[in-house]
Amino acid sequence: MAGNSFGQLFRVTTFGESHGIALGVVVDGCPPGLALSLRDLQRELDRRQPGQSRVTTSRQEPDQAELLSGVFEGKTLGTPIALLIRNRDAAPSAYDNLRRVFRPGHADLTYFLKYGLRDHRGGGRASGRETAARVAAGAIAKKLLAKFKVKVLAATVQAGKVRAEKFDPRVIEQNPMRCPDPQASAKMAALVERARKRGDSVGGVVEVRAQGVPAGLGEPVFDKLDADLAAALMGIGGVKGVEIGDGFSVASRLGSENADPILYRSGKFSTRDNRGGGILGGISTGEEIIVRLAVKPTSSIARKQKTVTQSGKATTIQIQGRHDPCLCPRIVPVAEAMVALVLADHLLRLRGQVGF
Amino acid sequence: MAGNSFGQLFRVTTFGESHGIALGVVVDGCPPGLALSLRDLQRELDRRQPGQSRVTTSRQEPDQAELLSGVFEGKTLGTPIALLIRNRDAAPSAYDNLRRVFRPGHADLTYFLKYGLRDHRGGGRASGRETAARVAAGAIAKKLLAKFKVKVLAATVQAGKVRAEKFDPRVIEQNPMRCPDPQASAKMAALVERARKRGDSVGGVVEVRAQGVPAGLGEPVFDKLDADLAAALMGIGGVKGVEIGDGFSVASRLGSENADPILYRSGKFSTRDNRGGGILGGISTGEEIIVRLAVKPTSSIARKQKTVTQSGKATTIQIQGRHDPCLCPRIVPVAEAMVALVLADHLLRLRGQVGF
Amino acid sequence: MAGNSFGQLFRVTTFGESHGIALGVVVDGCPPGLALSLRDLQRELDRRQPGQSRVTTSRQEPDQAELLSGVFEGKTLGTPIALLIRNRDAAPSAYDNLRRVFRPGHADLTYFLKYGLRDHRGGGRASGRETAARVAAGAIAKKLLAKFKVKVLAATVQAGKVRAEKFDPRVIEQNPMRCPDPQASAKMAALVERARKRGDSVGGVVEVRAQGVPAGLGEPVFDKLDADLAAALMGIGGVKGVEIGDGFSVASRLGSENADPILYRSGKFSTRDNRGGGILGGISTGEEIIVRLAVKPTSSIARKQKTVTQSGKATTIQIQGRHDPCLCPRIVPVAEAMVALVLADHLLRLRGQVGF
Amino acid sequence: MAGNSFGQLFRVTTFGESHGIALGVVVDGCPPGLALSLRDLQRELDRRQPGQSRVTTSRQEPDQAELLSGVFEGKTLGTPIALLIRNRDAAPSAYDNLRRVFRPGHADLTYFLKYGLRDHRGGGRASGRETAARVAAGAIAKKLLAKFKVKVLAATVQAGKVRAEKFDPRVIEQNPMRCPDPQASAKMAALVERARKRGDSVGGVVEVRAQGVPAGLGEPVFDKLDADLAAALMGIGGVKGVEIGDGFSVASRLGSENADPILYRSGKFSTRDNRGGGILGGISTGEEIIVRLAVKPTSSIARKQKTVTQSGKATTIQIQGRHDPCLCPRIVPVAEAMVALVLADHLLRLRGQVGF
Repeated sequence: MAGNSFGQLFRVTTFGESHGIALGVVVDGCPPGLALSLRDLQRELDRRQPGQSRVTTSRQEPDQAELLSGVFEGKTLGTPIALLIRNRDAAPSAYDNLRRVFRPGHADLTYFLKYGLRDHRGGGRASGRETAARVAAGAIAKKLLAKFKVKVLAATVQAGKVRAEKFDPRVIEQNPMRCPDPQASAKMAALVERARKRGDSVGGVVEVRAQGVPAGLGEPVFDKLDADLAAALMGIGGVKGVEIGDGFSVASRLGSENADPILYRSGKFSTRDNRGGGILGGISTGEEIIVRLAVKPTSSIARKQKTVTQSGKATTIQIQGRHDPCLCPRIVPVAEAMVALVLADHLLRLRGQVGF
Repeated sequence: MAGNSFGQLFRVTTFGESHGIALGVVVDGCPPGLALSLRDLQRELDRRQPGQSRVTTSRQEPDQAELLSGVFEGKTLGTPIALLIRNRDAAPSAYDNLRRVFRPGHADLTYFLKYGLRDHRGGGRASGRETAARVAAGAIAKKLLAKFKVKVLAATVQAGKVRAEKFDPRVIEQNPMRCPDPQASAKMAALVERARKRGDSVGGVVEVRAQGVPAGLGEPVFDKLDADLAAALMGIGGVKGVEIGDGFSVASRLGSENADPILYRSGKFSTRDNRGGGILGGISTGEEIIVRLAVKPTSSIARKQKTVTQSGKATTIQIQGRHDPCLCPRIVPVAEAMVALVLADHLLRLRGQVGF
Repeated sequence: MAGNSFGQLFRVTTFGESHGIALGVVVDGCPPGLALSLRDLQRELDRRQPGQSRVTTSRQEPDQAELLSGVFEGKTLGTPIALLIRNRDAAPSAYDNLRRVFRPGHADLTYFLKYGLRDHRGGGRASGRETAARVAAGAIAKKLLAKFKVKVLAATVQAGKVRAEKFDPRVIEQNPMRCPDPQASAKMAALVERARKRGDSVGGVVEVRAQGVPAGLGEPVFDKLDADLAAALMGIGGVKGVEIGDGFSVASRLGSENADPILYRSGKFSTRDNRGGGILGGISTGEEIIVRLAVKPTSSIARKQKTVTQSGKATTIQIQGRHDPCLCPRIVPVAEAMVALVLADHLLRLRGQVGF
Repeated sequence: MAGNSFGQLFRVTTFGESHGIALGVVVDGCPPGLALSLRDLQRELDRRQPGQSRVTTSRQEPDQAELLSGVFEGKTLGTPIALLIRNRDAAPSAYDNLRRVFRPGHADLTYFLKYGLRDHRGGGRASGRETAARVAAGAIAKKLLAKFKVKVLAATVQAGKVRAEKFDPRVIEQNPMRCPDPQASAKMAALVERARKRGDSVGGVVEVRAQGVPAGLGEPVFDKLDADLAAALMGIGGVKGVEIGDGFSVASRLGSENADPILYRSGKFSTRDNRGGGILGGISTGEEIIVRLAVKPTSSIARKQKTVTQSGKATTIQIQGRHDPCLCPRIVPVAEAMVALVLADHLLRLRGQVGF
C-alpha cells in the first residue's frame, strides 16, 4: 500500500501540498446513514486553524472544507466521502529562497533524498498544513464514535518544563495553550510568549484521552490498539515519542510497584489504577484510553541557522514567516483526530469479526 | 486485514498459542536468491531463548525451527518461507488454576472480553512466547538487510533506575543484561537479582540502533518510518512507550536548544547531532536510526495479587512458575527483529517506487 | 480495506456520485519525476466522453479534470496525485421518478439493500460516470508504462452477433464502434443504430491487448496477473465475463490440441501460439497480453419494464434520457485504464521484490 | 501485500512447494467460538485428493491435515488457525529431468523468468497441489457460512464438447466427473477415459452456485463481489475464463432480450430470471450466486512436446507420471473453497460496515 492511506475498514486517504491547489481527504468505509454536515467538519478545522492566538502562528489560512461526495440529503451513503480544502492565500514565491536550501529540522532534505525532487514551497507535502485533512477525517470518525458513546479529547499537559497538575476537560478550550490545568496554563502561555518574542520556540507534551471505548478493540499480535495508536501519533509531524498509560515511568519501577489489580464493579471489569491506559495485551479494557505524545519545539525559528544547499554547499538560513512558537495547542485537534480514526477503524473491525 | 500480519512487501504472518501444538511464521515477499539456512534462524532464536541466565526465566523451552517452504538448495525461492517451532515441553495442565481467573497486568481479561473465550494456558496467543516467530522472521529480514549493508542491534540501556552511560556494541552479548555499558551492566544485574530473590521484577528501557540504513525509507504521511517503527515496537508485549532520537527530552527544550544543523561530508548529508534519530519528516536521512522502548516490569511476580474470576468474583492469585525478573534482555532480540522487519519492508517499498 | 481503492504500490482511490458535486481520484505511489500534464489526462477522458457519436449517448457531460496535487513544475512529486472532475450539467431533479423505484438491471436495488439508503440520481455511485475517475488514473498509469515501453490498447471485437475477424490497431479510433476490423465495424454500427432507433441496446465483447509487458509480472498464488486482470475488468459495470488468451474455447479442446510449445528466439522466450494470452501460471511471459470482456446490452432501454418500488409494490418504469445503445465503444478506454493500472502496479511490485 | 494472502477480514495465507517439506495455510480473522474439527477439514481435503477414480490422477498423495493453532477445546479462538499438510510420498529425484527444461503450458518458464531460480520438482509452488491449502481454508469458511445458512457447491457442467443439461445437486458427488446431470456424466466419463488411454486430456467448465447468500455483499467500486469472485477463480491454475450469471452469452443479446424485471415475493426482492447470477452492480441481491470457470485440458500429456532448455536450446519433453486427464472433478472442491473464502470475507466486511 502506498503511504497516504490510514485505517482498514474506516479508511482515510489524504492528498495535497501546502502551497499547491488544494488539500483533501477521501474517507472510505464509513457506515451509511450517519448524519453529517459541513458544520461538523468546520468546527474541528477551526480548532486546527492558525491565528487563533499569539501562541499559534498568525498566518491567515482559512481552511474551508467542501464536501464533494458520499453524503446525500444530510446522511452518509456508505460510499467514499471526499472533502476538499483549497489553498486560498498561498504565496508560493515567498519560498523562492528555499528552492535549493534545506531547512534544518524539516523534511526538505529527506524528501529530496527520497524522491529526487521536491516542492520546496512551505514544505510541500511535509507541511503541518497536511494535518487539516486528518482533522476533517477525524471529525467524521468522531461523529461515528459519538453513536457508540465514545468521546476523544486532548490537551497540552506540558510546555517546556511546565507541567499540568490536573486534567479538567472544561478548561481546555478556554485557554490558548489548550491546557487542562488553569494554573499551569498561564505559566505555559507566559513561557511560550517569552520564546516567541525572542524568535524561539518551545516543545511540549500532548495527552489524549478517550472515554466510553468498548472493551475488545485491537487486533493482536500486530494491529494491537496501542501499536496502531503509536503509529497514528508518531506519524504527526514534530512528534518524537509516544507513551500509553504510565508510559516511560514504568521503566524505573518494580513489578510490585506497578501491579494493578483487576476489579469488577457494576457489571464491568476494570483495573484499580488503569496503569495500562485502558489497554492490556493490545486490547482495550473498557477503561479510559490515555496516550501522550512528545512534541519537539518548532524547528522554524527566527534565528540564523547553519545548513547546506542541495548541492552540499554550506550556507546559513533564517526562516521567514510567522510560525507557531509552540506546536502543542494546534496538535491537540490533530491528535484527537488520529485517535478517533484508530478507534473508529477498530470498532468496525471488531464488529466485523465478532458482530454487534 | 486481520491483525497477525505485518509489513507490506516483506510481509510476515505469525500464528500459535503458547501451549498449543506449535508456533510459526510465514514470510511472504522475500526477494529470491537470498542464501538462507536454519542456522541463520537458530542463532537468533537462541538469543530469545529462556534459560540463558538468572536474569531470564529458567524454564526449558527449546525453540527449534523447522523450515517448511520457500527455500530450495540453500536459497530463497521468492515464494513464502514458512517456519515452524513446536511447543515441546508444554505442560498445559499446570495452568488449570488460570482457567477462570484473570492475571493482573496480563491480557487474560481482554482476550476474554474481545473473543468471549480464551486459551488460558500460559496466556495462549498473548504469551511472550509468540515473539519467537517474530525473531525467526526478523532473522530473515536481517539476512536481506545485510546484503544492503544494514545492521540492526539493540541493548538494555536502563533497568529500574540504573542507566547505561555508554553504548559499546561489543559488550552487549557478553553480559546477561545485554547492557552496552560494562559498569552499568553489573549494577543492573545486581538489581535484577535482588528483585528475583524477592519474587519481584524490574522494568527497563531497550535501545535499538540501525546502521547503514539508506536515505529515503519511509512513506509519508501515514507510513512514515518512525510511525511504522513505533507500531512495531509498541506492539511487543510489555512495551508502554517508544521514542525516536532525542524522544521525550525534546518536550522540555527550546527550539534554539534543539536545532540541528545540516552538514554535507564525504558526499553524504547528515545532521550535526542526529537529534532526529536518523529520521526527518518520517523518512530516513541515512544516519543511524535510534529508537528506545520502555518495558514494564514483568507482571508475573511471585506475590499474592488481588484479582477477579471470569464471573466477576473477587479472589487472589499467586502466579506459579519461573518468570523473567526483567524482560529487557530477551526483548533485545525481539526489538531487533521488529526493526529489521520494518526496514526490510521499507527498503523494498522504496525500491518499488523509485527503483535501484 | 474499504472497496474504493485499487492496486497495492500504484494505488488508486476514487470517489463521487453521478449527480453529486464532483468525481475524483487520488493516485498514490506513482514514481516521482514522471512528466505529467492535464493534457495527458484530458486526451483519455475525451475518449470516454459521451456524445462522441450516435452509438454512444448524446448527453452533454464535459469531463474536465483539475489537477489538485502531486505534480510540481510538470513532474510527479511521488506524493499523491489528486484529480477532480466536477459534475457541471447535473440535473438531479430529472431523476425524481427514480427516488422510490428500482431500475431493472441496475444497482439501485442492491445499493438500497446494502446501505439502507441511496442516491437515486442517475445511479449515484453506481453510475458508469464513475469510470471517468478510472480513466484519469489509467492515463497516469499509461504514462508510467510508456517509460517501460509498455502499451495498452483495446477494441470492440464483438457487438451482438457481429465479430471482428482481424485486429488492426490503426483503425480502432477511426470508427465509432472502436472496432479493429473495418468491415465488421460498419456492420456493428448498423446493428447498433437499428437497436437505438427501436429504443433497444446491444451487447458485445471488448478485447484488451498489452504489448511490451516484461516477463515476471504477477504474484502467485493469489495476486496472479490474470487474477488481478479478471478482477479489474469484471469490476467494470456491465461486464459479465472475462477470459484470458484462448479463454472459454479451451474448455472444449483436447490437451493435444491446446499444446503450445515453448520457443527461444532473439534472446527471448515465447510460446508458438500464445494460447495463454501472455500469461503462464499467473505470471507474464513477455508476450502480448490478451484479455476479453463480455459486456451486457445497456439495461436502460426506452421500453416499459416491470419492476417494484422500494416498498415492494409492483410497478412499471420507462427509463428517460439518452443512453448508449452499446456500451462497448466507451468501455474501451475504461478497460485500457484498468489493465494499465494492473500492469503499473505489478511492475512496481516486481521491482520491489527483485529490483531493476 | 505479497501475493500469497487472500481476503481482508477473513484472511488466508498459504505456503508450500509441491515436493518440499509441507504445504500449509494460516487463516486469520475467523470469528471466535466456531466449532471446528480436523474432520471438517479432512472431508474437503479428501474430495480434492488424487486417486479418487480413473478420471483423476492415480498418484498416492494422502493429504492429512494437522491443526497447529487457533482452535481450543473444539472451538476457534479468534486467533490465527494454522494447518499443516506434510508432503509424505514426495519423490523429488523423479523430477531431475525437469531441472533445466521448461514444460509447455506450465509455469516453469515464468517462475524462472520472474525469480531467476525455481524449484523444478513437480512445479514447486506452481503445482496444483498448492490448492490443498485453499481447500482446507475453504472448509473453515464453509463452516462459518453454514452459521449464516449459506451453502456453496460446484459441479462439472462441461467436459470437452459434452454439456450438462440439468443441475441436480444430489448426483454431483455420485459420479467421478462430479457432473450434476446423470446422462451427461456418463458421456463425459467416456470422453475422458478415451483421452486418458491415448495419453491425452480434456478441458471443461465448472459451475459454482451459492445459496442463501444475504443481499448486500460486495464493496463497490473495486471490491465488487463479482470482481472478487473473478479474481478468486481466475487465480486457480488452469482456469482461463470466468463468467457470472448469463456471462458471455449476454454479448450477443439485445437489451430487450436481456431485461430481467425485479420482483418482490414473500418479503424478498429478486429478479425474474436471475440473469445477473445473484449480483447487480457488484453487490449480491440475495438470489443464488452462479459463476462458471473455463478449465484448460491438462498440459501434462503423455506425448512428446517441443520445448526449450533454460539456456534456450530447442529440445523435446515427454512428461512422466500419471496426471488427471481432466482437471474439472478435482477443481470442483477448489472452486467451492475459493467462492466460500470470498463470501466469508465479504460477510464480515459487510458486518463491519453496517452491523448485524
